[in-house]
Amino acid sequence: METELSRNLGIEHAIFGFTPFPAVAAAISRAGGLGVLGAVRYTAPDDLARDLDWMTDHVDGKPYGLDVVMPARKVEGVTEADVEAMIPEGHRRFVQETLARHGVPELAEGEASGWRITGWMEEVARGQLDVAFDHPIALLANALGSPPADVIARAHAQGVLVAALAGSAKHARRHAEAGIDIIVAQGYEAGGHTGEIASMVLVPEVVDAVGPLPVLAAGGIGSGGQVAAGLALGAQGVWLGSLWLTTEEADLHSRALTRKLLAAGSGDTVRSRALTGKPARQLRTEWTDAWDDQAGPGTLPMPLQGLLVADAVSRIQKYEIGSLLGTPVGQIVGSMDTERSVQAVFDDLTRGFERAVDRVNRIAGRSAP
Amino acid sequence: METELSRNLGIEHAIFGFTPFPAVAAAISRAGGLGVLGAVRYTAPDDLARDLDWMTDHVDGKPYGLDVVMPARKVEGVTEADVEAMIPEGHRRFVQETLARHGVPELAEGEASGWRITGWMEEVARGQLDVAFDHPIALLANALGSPPADVIARAHAQGVLVAALAGSAKHARRHAEAGIDIIVAQGYEAGGHTGEIASMVLVPEVVDAVGPLPVLAAGGIGSGGQVAAGLALGAQGVWLGSLWLTTEEADLHSRALTRKLLAAGSGDTVRSRALTGKPARQLRTEWTDAWDDQAGPGTLPMPLQGLLVADAVSRIQKYEIGSLLGTPVGQIVGSMDTERSVQAVFDDLTRGFERAVDRVNRIAGRSAP
Repeated sequence: METELSRNLGIEHAIFGFTPFPAVAAAISRAGGLGVLGAVRYTAPDDLARDLDWMTDHVDGKPYGLDVVMPARKVEGVTEADVEAMIPEGHRRFVQETLARHGVPELAEGEASGWRITGWMEEVARGQLDVAFDHPIALLANALGSPPADVIARAHAQGVLVAALAGSAKHARRHAEAGIDIIVAQGYEAGGHTGEIASMVLVPEVVDAVGPLPVLAAGGIGSGGQVAAGLALGAQGVWLGSLWLTTEEADLHSRALTRKLLAAGSGDTVRSRALTGKPARQLRTEWTDAWDDQAGPGTLPMPLQGLLVADAVSRIQKYEIGSLLGTPVGQIVGSMDTERSVQAVFDDLTRGFERAVDRVNRIAGRSAP
Repeated sequence: METELSRNLGIEHAIFGFTPFPAVAAAISRAGGLGVLGAVRYTAPDDLARDLDWMTDHVDGKPYGLDVVMPARKVEGVTEADVEAMIPEGHRRFVQETLARHGVPELAEGEASGWRITGWMEEVARGQLDVAFDHPIALLANALGSPPADVIARAHAQGVLVAALAGSAKHARRHAEAGIDIIVAQGYEAGGHTGEIASMVLVPEVVDAVGPLPVLAAGGIGSGGQVAAGLALGAQGVWLGSLWLTTEEADLHSRALTRKLLAAGSGDTVRSRALTGKPARQLRTEWTDAWDDQAGPGTLPMPLQGLLVADAVSRIQKYEIGSLLGTPVGQIVGSMDTERSVQAVFDDLTRGFERAVDRVNRIAGRSAP
């Protein structure tokens, strides 16, 4: 599965795998794709350095990438405490009442929240980038608009390609003008932050808008047939995130959550602002219902909502409160029903792709070459 | 573009075109697809008979189909007047106030509403079926669940295949159990009634659920690349509706509406209950905004909402009130930017399909045969 982009990156298959787990990212790269490690949950640069060291040692010399969440516009002098102070008391009360109603225990004294996401903050993201550029990353992706111009320039000076996610042709054009190398067209059905346009419509629209810049199809892809569909739509590769959550190498820190993912159907997700303040697709739970309920206080804008709920999400995960337990994931979760190794998932994608190509060739009346 | 299903139906290309316009349906069949005429707006069986006679004379002997909106469950003895009486006065007032605020003139005394959709009523749909079975239809599609068992039996006795739309694997399974021959898997991005699951995820899920029953991919398809994507997902054909609205043969009775469709982007639609009481994708307008506004009275369930707004929609269309003027249409509307003949659109689909097959073959490392 080879495109101009995959050849440029020196990978065997044009499959890009986004994951917060170094073991998964490394396995994707070893299998012949490009493993892209999500950095947003790293607070300390040293932790990220340790994991990138590990990955460098475990990809058999193959390329890998890093995904950061960096705002293009810098907000000068704003600290985490400043942002905390902007959260209304009523919202804090709503969090505590909702947790109490579901009997969620407190964290232990001094216990840190694993869900305290600060990677979106300029200073934290900058620290991550210093670490990243000390490692042999092949790709730097940004999940929140184009990265600042100096970051793009630094990446290009080191021969690192820069990718950015887009949910509309307009966003994609803005990325292209900023000097981004690869657009990830992320459809409505995708896990995490998404727009309203489904992949079937979005991918060709973005290809038309930014071509010849390479576009990756993201959202709704979890089988070889879906890979073939994304490529038929004009993408130079596919970008998968959800599918890896139930691989054997993934470490969700919660068996209950893994079981929930394996049991969920395609209709069991919701596009909600509950987690970050921006619409992000995730498992639908009584937690997302509470935030989306008109009777509640509603969500706060990013980054307030993320800070507001960080401890709560940690408590829900630690104590595995089934009715509230969720995670960002796309509609493809309906097809994730067994735990397999990354390699097995990858083989399934590449073999399924070949079968789908056979299929369209038969329909087109072309004999198999 | 040939599948087992297209061979069974004796059509050259596995492209199914749904349209309320006989001239469009006939042109689709002549071009080598299967034109499917939407019957829901016909009130008098004679009008339908006249248009089916015309189609029979204008398809060059090629097959065509009919789409009805027939509830599987019969509600005994309920008349249109009974349903009218269930509409709350406050909702009627909201309609008149909204129209008045936008300066929409009244219809002339005794002028009939072209939007008075009664095809969903048992007696009207039965009358349509009597007419349909007197014509050489090859396919009977139902847009509202499975048709009643006796209708399926009657179709099969006449060698007519029966299709039904499904927005989830569960609905598709129910159709299969009812004896439906073809499932139209209609994704979130489609125009008209849709569920929440996008085509990329829905199509393979439905194929898995009902195979070997043939599945058509619907929603988000307007180019040859999207046709190839739908077929790569396991469909035995594609079902397109929106794309024909801006063909030269279509007769929207409003140049303003045609111009609006040509100008609209993929983000200019909304899934709203404003038109029928069930979520249906359509152009977003100040009319849909008024119904979706929490400050308003909200929509009524089907069929009340359709009856409530019928005259209003007619008035908006007749007087071409730009801010309120809408129509059911899918996200693909963003790519509909020129008026062309049905044949030109069809050629674009088949040639684009060939190019997309070339493309995936190159990516798969297979030389062109």
